[in-house]
Amino acid sequence: MARKAAIIGGGVIGGGWAARFVLNGWDAAVFDPDPQAERRIGEVMANARAALPALADVPMPPEGRLTFAGSITEALDGAGYVQESVSENLALKQRIFAQIQQVAPGLPVGSSTSGFKPSELQQGAANPATLFVAHPFNPVYLLPLAEVVPSPASDPAVIEAAKETLRQIGMYPLHIRKEIDAHIADRFLEAVWREALWLVKDGVATTEEIDEAIRMGFGLRWGQMGLFETYRIAGGEPGMKHFMAQFGPYLTAPWTRLTDVPEFNQGLVDLIAGQSDAQSGHYTIRELERIRDSNLIGFLRVLKDRNWGAGRVLKEHDRRLAQALPAPAPDTAAPMVMARLQVLPGWIDYNGHMTESRYLFAASETVDTFLRLIGADMDYVAGGHSYYTAESHILHKDEARLGDRLTGSVQVLQADEKRLRVFVTIARGADVVATVEQMLLHVDMAAGKTCPASPAVLARLMPVARAHQALPAPADAGRSIGRKS
Amino acid sequence: MARKAAIIGGGVIGGGWAARFVLNGWDAAVFDPDPQAERRIGEVMANARAALPALADVPMPPEGRLTFAGSITEALDGAGYVQESVSENLALKQRIFAQIQQVAPGLPVGSSTSGFKPSELQQGAANPATLFVAHPFNPVYLLPLAEVVPSPASDPAVIEAAKETLRQIGMYPLHIRKEIDAHIADRFLEAVWREALWLVKDGVATTEEIDEAIRMGFGLRWGQMGLFETYRIAGGEPGMKHFMAQFGPYLTAPWTRLTDVPEFNQGLVDLIAGQSDAQSGHYTIRELERIRDSNLIGFLRVLKDRNWGAGRVLKEHDRRLAQALPAPAPDTAAPMVMARLQVLPGWIDYNGHMTESRYLFAASETVDTFLRLIGADMDYVAGGHSYYTAESHILHKDEARLGDRLTGSVQVLQADEKRLRVFVTIARGADVVATVEQMLLHVDMAAGKTCPASPAVLARLMPVARAHQALPAPADAGRSIGRKS
Repeated sequence: MARKAAIIGGGVIGGGWAARFVLNGWDAAVFDPDPQAERRIGEVMANARAALPALADVPMPPEGRLTFAGSITEALDGAGYVQESVSENLALKQRIFAQIQQVAPGLPVGSSTSGFKPSELQQGAANPATLFVAHPFNPVYLLPLAEVVPSPASDPAVIEAAKETLRQIGMYPLHIRKEIDAHIADRFLEAVWREALWLVKDGVATTEEIDEAIRMGFGLRWGQMGLFETYRIAGGEPGMKHFMAQFGPYLTAPWTRLTDVPEFNQGLVDLIAGQSDAQSGHYTIRELERIRDSNLIGFLRVLKDRNWGAGRVLKEHDRRLAQALPAPAPDTAAPMVMARLQVLPGWIDYNGHMTESRYLFAASETVDTFLRLIGADMDYVAGGHSYYTAESHILHKDEARLGDRLTGSVQVLQADEKRLRVFVTIARGADVVATVEQMLLHVDMAAGKTCPASPAVLARLMPVARAHQALPAPADAGRSIGRKS
Repeated sequence: MARKAAIIGGGVIGGGWAARFVLNGWDAAVFDPDPQAERRIGEVMANARAALPALADVPMPPEGRLTFAGSITEALDGAGYVQESVSENLALKQRIFAQIQQVAPGLPVGSSTSGFKPSELQQGAANPATLFVAHPFNPVYLLPLAEVVPSPASDPAVIEAAKETLRQIGMYPLHIRKEIDAHIADRFLEAVWREALWLVKDGVATTEEIDEAIRMGFGLRWGQMGLFETYRIAGGEPGMKHFMAQFGPYLTAPWTRLTDVPEFNQGLVDLIAGQSDAQSGHYTIRELERIRDSNLIGFLRVLKDRNWGAGRVLKEHDRRLAQALPAPAPDTAAPMVMARLQVLPGWIDYNGHMTESRYLFAASETVDTFLRLIGADMDYVAGGHSYYTAESHILHKDEARLGDRLTGSVQVLQADEKRLRVFVTIARGADVVATVEQMLLHVDMAAGKTCPASPAVLARLMPVARAHQALPAPADAGRSIGRKS
C-alpha cells in the first residue's frame, strides 16, 4: 500500500516536497487555499520530473498519486507524515498545527520554517512531542539537505522515524543538536546576505560581480567540501591547528561591516533589483530554473560518480530503491526493455544531437540492468567475477535530442557458459535511434581470464537466451563496417 | 619566444600560480628562500599536471620552463609579469616590492594578498602605479577567480594588461571597482568563518555537521549561480523586489552572533582541530587534495558542457589556446596522434576499469580533432555542414585504469566526397587498449541528408587519405561481431 504525505502550503517549497514524495512512490495530498496553488505545484512537478529521475541509476518506483485537498482534514486522511510549508509567520503556523492536531494529534509534523525554533512552533500545541523542524533548501526536489531540529519537548522516536521518512525520499536529514534561530545553514546565508547588501549599497560591487566572486571561486569548493574540510587542506600537512594559528588573529580585524545593519529602504531595494535585472533579466525565471537544475544535476552526478558528499546520498538512495523493487519478471516473448533515460544538456554535442559516446552509455546502462537481472550484480563483481565487453558495434539510425526520453531494450543473440552476445535497441517511442550489438565475455577478474559463469547466473540467463532464439534475428546483427553499401 | 613570469613566494599559492603559468606555456622563475619551497612547488605542479589539462578540449601548449631563482633579481631577469605570494605581512610585502622596483620599476606586480588594500601595498613604493592586487583562490590551478584590485594611484593601462595576462593563463579577472579590506570574496568567507566558530564553540554543530549543512545544500547552488541569481529564482516571476520584500525585514532579526567575536584561545583551537580530525583525519592532505581536485574538475566540466559560469571561462580559454596553436603538420607516414587524454575518476566503472562509453568518447575526441584539422571545425558546423557518425565498431584489447594517459590516433581507411571511414587506435604508450572503426557521413544539417564536403575540406582530407592508403591495413578493420571465433 502506498504511503501518503499531507503537504500543507503549496508554494515553491511545498511543491518541492510534494514532488519528492510523489516521485519516490508516496501519495501526496496538498492543501493550500490559494487558487494559484495547483498551477504552481504543476510547474514545480514538471521541473522535478525532468530533474530528479536523471539522478537515479535504478528505476524509480511508480509515481504516487498527487491530489489537492479542500481542507486540512481532507489532506490528513490516511497520511503518515505531514509537512508544513506556509508563510514564515509564527502565529499562522501555530494555528495550522492546532488544526492538524485536532484531527490527528499523533502524526509527525515537520515544519519548513527557516527561522523559528521548534520550541516556538510547539508553544500552545496539543501535542508538542510530534512537532519539529524539517527545513529543506530550494530546489527541494534536487538538494538533499533537510535540517531536522527537535526541541527538548520532542519525542526522540518521532524524530528518528521522520529522519527515516526523509531518507526514503532521497534526502539527507541533518540532525541539529541544539535549537537556535535559523538553524545552521541560514545563519551563513544571512551573514553573507548582510555583507552583500553592504557591498552593493556602498558601490563596491554589483550583484553580478558578487555572484561571479562566489561561483568562480569558493562556491565551487563548497559544492563538494564545506568550510572546515576546505580549510584543513589549506593548512596542509601541519593540519587544522596550523590553519587556525595562521588565520585566527584576523578575527579581530575590522574587515566586515556586520556589526552594523544596512537600512532596508526603497532605495536599496531599487538598487539591487535594478542590478539583478541587468545581470539576469534576459532569462525568465523558468529558464533560470532549468539552467540551475541542469547544473545541479551535473554537480550531483559528478559527486555520485565519485561517491562523495551529496553523491553518496544518491548512491544510498539507489540501493534503497533497488531493494524495494520487485524482481522484474523477464518478458521473453520480445526484446526486454531494461533502461529508461532522458537526454540531458551535458549529453549534447556541437551539432545539437546526443553525443555519440552517450549511445554506448545508454547501451551500457541497458546491459548492466540485464546483467543485474540475471544475478551478475555488484555482489557478483565483488566476488571476483564479471562480464566484460569485448566488442561493440553501433549503428546510428536517427538522432536523439535534448530532453528526448529513450528506452534501451535487450535481445540475447547467443549465449554459452563464457560468452553473451546481445543486441541492444535504443529507441524514442517507436523510433529506433541506434542499435548496439555487443559481445560480452565472462571473466575471472583476478586471473584476468575468461571462465564459465556461475550456475546461478546461467540458470537465469539460458532460459532467456532460448526464448529469444524464437524472436526474429535483427537485420543489422553481425554486420561489419567494411561491407560495401 | 616564451613569456616569463617571476613568482615571488613559493608556498601553495605561489606554486599554484607557477603551475598555471607553466602549463599555459609561460616560463616561470620562482624565488623563495625556504629550502622546502622546491619540494612544495613540485607537489603543487604534480597536482596541477593531473588536473588542469583535464579541463581543456584543445591541446595545451608545450609546458614552459620552471626554474628556481637564487634571488629576486635573478627571478626578474626577462620577466614580463611578477606575482607576489609571500606571507600576509604588510611590511614584508612592501620590502619585496622595493627590491623588485629597484631592479625593474616598470614591471606589473600583482599581489596575492587576501586582506590588504592596494593603496596600503603602494605606500612608500618607488612606482605605485604598477602595484595592484591579483588575489587568487586555492587551488589556484583550478579555480578561475582572480580579484584584480587597483587603487586610484594605479595605471589603468597596467591593470588592463594584467587582466589580459590572467586571461592568457585561463583565469577570470574580476575587476573590483573600489578598494576595501579583504576585497569581496574573503569578506563572505570571513563572515561565514566567524559564524561557524560560534556554532562550534556553542556546541550547536560540529565541524562535520557544518560542512554537511553547506555541501548538501547551498554550496551546490553557489558553484553555478551566486547569491543574487539564486535569490532571483526564489523570488519567482514577481522578481527580485518580491524576494527583497519577503526577506528584507529579517535583517533586523537577532539571528547572527556577528555583532560579537568569539575569543580566539587554545580551547577553541583544540575543539575545532579535534573535530576536524574526527571528520577528515582518515585522509591525508594529499588524498583530500586529489578528491577535491577530482570533484572540482567534474563541476567545471559540467559547467563547460553547459557553457555557464566558470565553464564559459574554460570555453573561452580553449578558443584562445586553439588560436595560438600552429596548424599541426599532418604526419601522413603513420596513423596521426590526434588526442591525449587521462583517465579521470568519473570514468571508472564498478569493475575499476574505464567505463566502456569512455572508449568511444576517446575515439570521438580523436576524430573531432582530426575533423578540425581538415577544416570541418565549429565554424564549418555553424555554416550548416558536419560529419555525422553512422556506425562504430569497438574492439577492447586491454583495460585502461584510473590515471592512465591515453593517446588516440587516426588512420583514414577510405574517403570520398561524402564518406569518411577511419580506424582509431586508443593506446597507453605502446599498448593498444581499444580500436574503434568508424564510418562518418558528410551531411547538410538543415536538409538532414548527405552531401559532398566543401572543396576546402576535401583538399585537406584527400591527401591524407591517399597517403594512408600506403599504410598497412589494420588487422581488425572490417570485422563484424557475428564472425565465429
